[in-house]
Amino acid sequence: MTTRQGTDSNVVLVNQEFDVVGTRPIRHDGADKVTGRARYGADFQAADLLRGRVLRSPHAHARIKSIDTSKAEALEGVRAVVTSRDFPTNDADKPARRYQRENVLAGEKALYVGHAIAGVAAVSDHVAEEALSLIDVEYEVLPPVTSAPQGMASESPILHEEMRTDESGEKGTVPSNVATHFQQVIGDLEEGFAKADFIIEREFDTATVHQGYIEPQNGTALWNNDGRLHVWTSTQGAFPVRTSLSQILDLPVSKIRVTPMEIGGGFGGKIPVYLEPVAALLSRKTGRPVKMQMSRREVFEGTGPTPGSHIKVKMGATRDGKLTAAQAHLAYEAGAFPGSPVGAGATCVFACYNIPNIVIDGYDVVVNKPKTAAYRAPGATNAAFASETVVDMLAEKVGMDPLDFRMLNTSREGTRRADGTPYGVVGCAEVIEAMKSHPHYASKLEGPNRGRGVAVGFWMNIGWRSACSISVNYDGTINLLIGSTDIGGTRASIAMQAAEVLGITPEDVNPAVVDTDSIGYTDVTGGSRTTFATGWAAHEAAVDVRNEMLKRAAILWEIEPENIEFNKSVFRSKSDPELSISFKELARKMNDTGGGVVGKSTVDPKGVGVSFAGAITDVEIDPETGKVTVLRFTCVQDVGKAVHPSYVEGQMQGGSVQGIGWGLNEEYYMNPEGGMDNFTLLDYRMPTSLDIPMIDTVIVEVASPGHPYGVRGVGEASILAPPAAIADAIHNAIGIRLDNLPMNPPAVLAALSNGNSGS
Amino acid sequence: MTTRQGTDSNVVLVNQEFDVVGTRPIRHDGADKVTGRARYGADFQAADLLRGRVLRSPHAHARIKSIDTSKAEALEGVRAVVTSRDFPTNDADKPARRYQRENVLAGEKALYVGHAIAGVAAVSDHVAEEALSLIDVEYEVLPPVTSAPQGMASESPILHEEMRTDESGEKGTVPSNVATHFQQVIGDLEEGFAKADFIIEREFDTATVHQGYIEPQNGTALWNNDGRLHVWTSTQGAFPVRTSLSQILDLPVSKIRVTPMEIGGGFGGKIPVYLEPVAALLSRKTGRPVKMQMSRREVFEGTGPTPGSHIKVKMGATRDGKLTAAQAHLAYEAGAFPGSPVGAGATCVFACYNIPNIVIDGYDVVVNKPKTAAYRAPGATNAAFASETVVDMLAEKVGMDPLDFRMLNTSREGTRRADGTPYGVVGCAEVIEAMKSHPHYASKLEGPNRGRGVAVGFWMNIGWRSACSISVNYDGTINLLIGSTDIGGTRASIAMQAAEVLGITPEDVNPAVVDTDSIGYTDVTGGSRTTFATGWAAHEAAVDVRNEMLKRAAILWEIEPENIEFNKSVFRSKSDPELSISFKELARKMNDTGGGVVGKSTVDPKGVGVSFAGAITDVEIDPETGKVTVLRFTCVQDVGKAVHPSYVEGQMQGGSVQGIGWGLNEEYYMNPEGGMDNFTLLDYRMPTSLDIPMIDTVIVEVASPGHPYGVRGVGEASILAPPAAIADAIHNAIGIRLDNLPMNPPAVLAALSNGNSGS
Repeated sequence: MTTRQGTDSNVVLVNQEFDVVGTRPIRHDGADKVTGRARYGADFQAADLLRGRVLRSPHAHARIKSIDTSKAEALEGVRAVVTSRDFPTNDADKPARRYQRENVLAGEKALYVGHAIAGVAAVSDHVAEEALSLIDVEYEVLPPVTSAPQGMASESPILHEEMRTDESGEKGTVPSNVATHFQQVIGDLEEGFAKADFIIEREFDTATVHQGYIEPQNGTALWNNDGRLHVWTSTQGAFPVRTSLSQILDLPVSKIRVTPMEIGGGFGGKIPVYLEPVAALLSRKTGRPVKMQMSRREVFEGTGPTPGSHIKVKMGATRDGKLTAAQAHLAYEAGAFPGSPVGAGATCVFACYNIPNIVIDGYDVVVNKPKTAAYRAPGATNAAFASETVVDMLAEKVGMDPLDFRMLNTSREGTRRADGTPYGVVGCAEVIEAMKSHPHYASKLEGPNRGRGVAVGFWMNIGWRSACSISVNYDGTINLLIGSTDIGGTRASIAMQAAEVLGITPEDVNPAVVDTDSIGYTDVTGGSRTTFATGWAAHEAAVDVRNEMLKRAAILWEIEPENIEFNKSVFRSKSDPELSISFKELARKMNDTGGGVVGKSTVDPKGVGVSFAGAITDVEIDPETGKVTVLRFTCVQDVGKAVHPSYVEGQMQGGSVQGIGWGLNEEYYMNPEGGMDNFTLLDYRMPTSLDIPMIDTVIVEVASPGHPYGVRGVGEASILAPPAAIADAIHNAIGIRLDNLPMNPPAVLAALSNGNSGS
Repeated sequence: MTTRQGTDSNVVLVNQEFDVVGTRPIRHDGADKVTGRARYGADFQAADLLRGRVLRSPHAHARIKSIDTSKAEALEGVRAVVTSRDFPTNDADKPARRYQRENVLAGEKALYVGHAIAGVAAVSDHVAEEALSLIDVEYEVLPPVTSAPQGMASESPILHEEMRTDESGEKGTVPSNVATHFQQVIGDLEEGFAKADFIIEREFDTATVHQGYIEPQNGTALWNNDGRLHVWTSTQGAFPVRTSLSQILDLPVSKIRVTPMEIGGGFGGKIPVYLEPVAALLSRKTGRPVKMQMSRREVFEGTGPTPGSHIKVKMGATRDGKLTAAQAHLAYEAGAFPGSPVGAGATCVFACYNIPNIVIDGYDVVVNKPKTAAYRAPGATNAAFASETVVDMLAEKVGMDPLDFRMLNTSREGTRRADGTPYGVVGCAEVIEAMKSHPHYASKLEGPNRGRGVAVGFWMNIGWRSACSISVNYDGTINLLIGSTDIGGTRASIAMQAAEVLGITPEDVNPAVVDTDSIGYTDVTGGSRTTFATGWAAHEAAVDVRNEMLKRAAILWEIEPENIEFNKSVFRSKSDPELSISFKELARKMNDTGGGVVGKSTVDPKGVGVSFAGAITDVEIDPETGKVTVLRFTCVQDVGKAVHPSYVEGQMQGGSVQGIGWGLNEEYYMNPEGGMDNFTLLDYRMPTSLDIPMIDTVIVEVASPGHPYGVRGVGEASILAPPAAIADAIHNAIGIRLDNLPMNPPAVLAALSNGNSGS
């Protein structure tokens, strides 16, 4: 295996070269993070700080008949106890708002094991924990719903009596666990299948999987007696936390200040609020700051994983290998409240291919599990596992190389997705081409029980709103304010885009992630948007600075700004070659030419660069144990432009590893009562560095139109292909196709003993 | 006595009315400050925090022969010891830089009692303090210089061998304690005195006085191993601290982040750095954050008070009361290093009057006292005490009412100061007029040993650089970022100027004082500039927001921005009366019209509104004890425009009380060895609420041309008149003119027994 990470030879260029963008400087937050100086939520300290804990439901489904907090309140050291009754409830007519609130503290029912019931604030963690055991909750235990198919069955227990969605997706007459049903249609499905020479139809189940970030959720709140709430939390988005708190607590956003602490991983799971509103209520009751942190068990049981799903995919192709029709039935577990990413699953399930006739049915089904949250390309990995397996089977039927088959059907500029959106310039073909021409794909794989698999995946990425501010220091450096929390090196990738404009180095930029009072509205760090959109905002703010500095040169030289040009960090008179001054020199003269220089920007990009990624993997199966070992893994992704290739490679490797874990081992192992049995990181089996080979990466750069540097966003697409590629590799190794995730040793052993032949 | 504080009846209006500017909302930081939630420097906490202490010189003047820190370093719990040898010294050729550094940690000589010699970082305050006693310093004690006249005498001990200033102000050949001598001349002095019918010449001495802020200096530093220094400190200016640290530590400003904590008073004394560079050196040595705080004794002995001075003033007037000539000799104590405010004293000494012939000589004299710092209109109170006493004596000679005499000679638009500057629109005449027409001045004052006095004073105020950023929240409120630390309510007065532009309330503005990474360069909170210049910047940033919001209305209505007007918080189509939308409603639509809206500004105002203030006071002298009791006190000031009248009144009252303290009691009581004997707040006698009557205030509003609201700046001018007014009142009570400050009981008793007649 050749590891080419860290070199430039693995970059496929369909994009420009720049001075700063595309280089690999050391990240600005590196020293703080490797020396322990970076301040995470758990590091927060304040005078008078109380500690809060949460009482959680032991039942997956139960009516809460009563909550008696009196004994807990009487315990020495306890300062306050809160339940959902402490929330404002002026929005009884808005179920979405109520669901949001009741996920934070249960209302009339406990809807999953781990569902928060009450919060306690006390002088110490230990007292708070002891107080939890003194809260008497009387439950009427109800039968749980533990999967989407079960939830959709007519005899299923019902979670929310008021939820009534009939098969058409309209409001029906009988209670249902289906929160939403939608359909996407293009072309004529029947006609499409009629044209097919081969049709494959298959069903898949995927387990509930957790994002597995290292740092547990935390939150500290101070509800001051001037009515202003200040929250410190490790979050993917300080502004979204502000919005959520505003909705849950019925408090104007302007009364809320959210300070984002450093964040120890999120992957989508640190977007919702859990502890913050409870800490806020406890602080309002006590007048003191209240700090809360989750245990690992609480993270697993009380926060949002990505949904388990039941998926049916049917696809048809001609003898020549052209896809003619595709159908998908996607039933995703929302968890206890509506809102699975089934819509994204639908958008992505067939998005790699130009298929003229498609019907997709999506079902968002409430079940007695934690309300799902985002997880790296949410909803799309489940879908890609299903559709890519069927695509592989069709390629096999047609008798084509699986990459040639994909290339023949690849999405290109103008291809319409099932949701009707036509593509602009996209890099799907370039990704498949790079996979095909990669030495990994050409290499020999020898030995028994070994196989190679491939798969591709699509993720649409998001744009959304970002703001940046820049102030110029008189030493020619700049301070850059960012509202996007930095999970994977975005301080660097954003700073680099500002540096590029001004002809300075990344080290000349001092990026700071600030609180919601200190920067314009900035959406969540997620959806692969941060380097794309906040980087764009940094570019715009730097352009604002450059334009102002150009005016300063004009003042200095007493000429018109129109007569000045800027190139490679130097301002020059267009007519007088004697007149030139570097950005840094001019910064020293700010005070003589009108005072300080600042720049600002807000962006809300509508044209987002979508991303395709593929995986090639070699596996070996131990027929004795059923264990699947990944021998080699190559991730290929169209990133538009790799602003900082090392961090892009890191994202691709991280996504690949998470996809491998999802494919092979990770799952919420549920007991019949609807509880999770493997709520520790010992039992919930994420891959470690001992489990996987070095992940090889190939960066494909098909510039995203519109973005100043052609950036598409890189954080998510790499998770899509691994489960399907591994399933394909297992099939190629031992002739068995697995339809369920995870493909763990018991599943492989069972399939081997069943003699599942794969088609 | 009628107290009219808090009503509008005492406002003399020569300015516009506004919707927000001129009202009295509750300050935004009020709740935090009255409940103890506001975080001052002493509240800073961090993991691994070390505590630092400073060893200080017991001698006023001594050569440091050796410093042995080995025993201290060996003490268990001590982590580092630093001396001036730990500073970088690549600037040997720049005395100013060296003086700055050596005031922080002494170089070859200790130059005042309390001069910092070494710093210690240890695991606790107690260990650090114990370590101080283990540092062996070998001193060669030298005779001290304790006053400006002594320092200027030819036989004086010399502080700095390299300092050589001859009488012309040029570099001389023999060592001297005169750091600077300058002269201001207008007209022909001899000719002027020749025209005078009455000439008064008199000498004055004023004592060293401390600002007397409640919160001692503090500073915490973390010199990270990525080469970046983060400092948290209670300061009047985070950016000036950054600049000072950059110079002292030879570190680029971009490597330094200064977070301003809340500040418990400054009055000019919290502009220089003392502990911050020592904490930085200690942090660099230990790799840990180091926190330092001063004791009250350290504040008195180790920080900059305002200078003692020796002043001669000679003035002449005609029989008709016209001033014809004025001469001043101002010798100010710089303290141990150059830089007294004698220049400001010269600018102000005769600035209330139109005098055609003036000569002013200013001397900046180094003495063995702490290096002076700014104190509320620095240098001008000393000067006003002298010149206003002489003006009173001339009025008495001429036989005119002292206010009529002043009005006859008052500075007006076009009057030139001795420094050559002609006035724009100024309010000196309006202040004198308001004093004359005030009921206090017309009231009867009966009883023995009682007298009334008046005086006026001038302060030029400063403009300098400020930046603001605004982001609009979707609930129609705004977040306002400010770089000016808030000492006296400037969050409110700045926020109000932004609110005025946008037609929103002060409560709709959420102002935040942020660190040096988070806002454009903003100069110190001082010079009465903050409400003036940072408020101006807030206005400009709000205009930027308004202009952007107008474009959003244009997008919404699909019309040209030129066709939209904004008035009283509502955008309106100029042609279609159906089209109107409030700022708040439009804020809700930001996302549909292009994303977030932010505004920015930087200002560097050149035309600053100068300020005049006057005092009327009634006193009673106890002939037995010499104690002077202030019976009634009225402060009249031209503020241009009172943005928040309550806080303007607070500034006027605070300045008046400080002027009263300076006039009657405050002084560094020096022993013959050059040490201060009264280094506690029990012995250093500042006025308490029991010592003074309610200070009545009259706000005069002569709009400052250029400023959007006519603001002049209000923080300083009110301190100028009190000592002179009290001296005049004492004279009118008991017929004695006192020439020295403070006019404390021993001084009054001595004068009474000397039979000093006052003329």
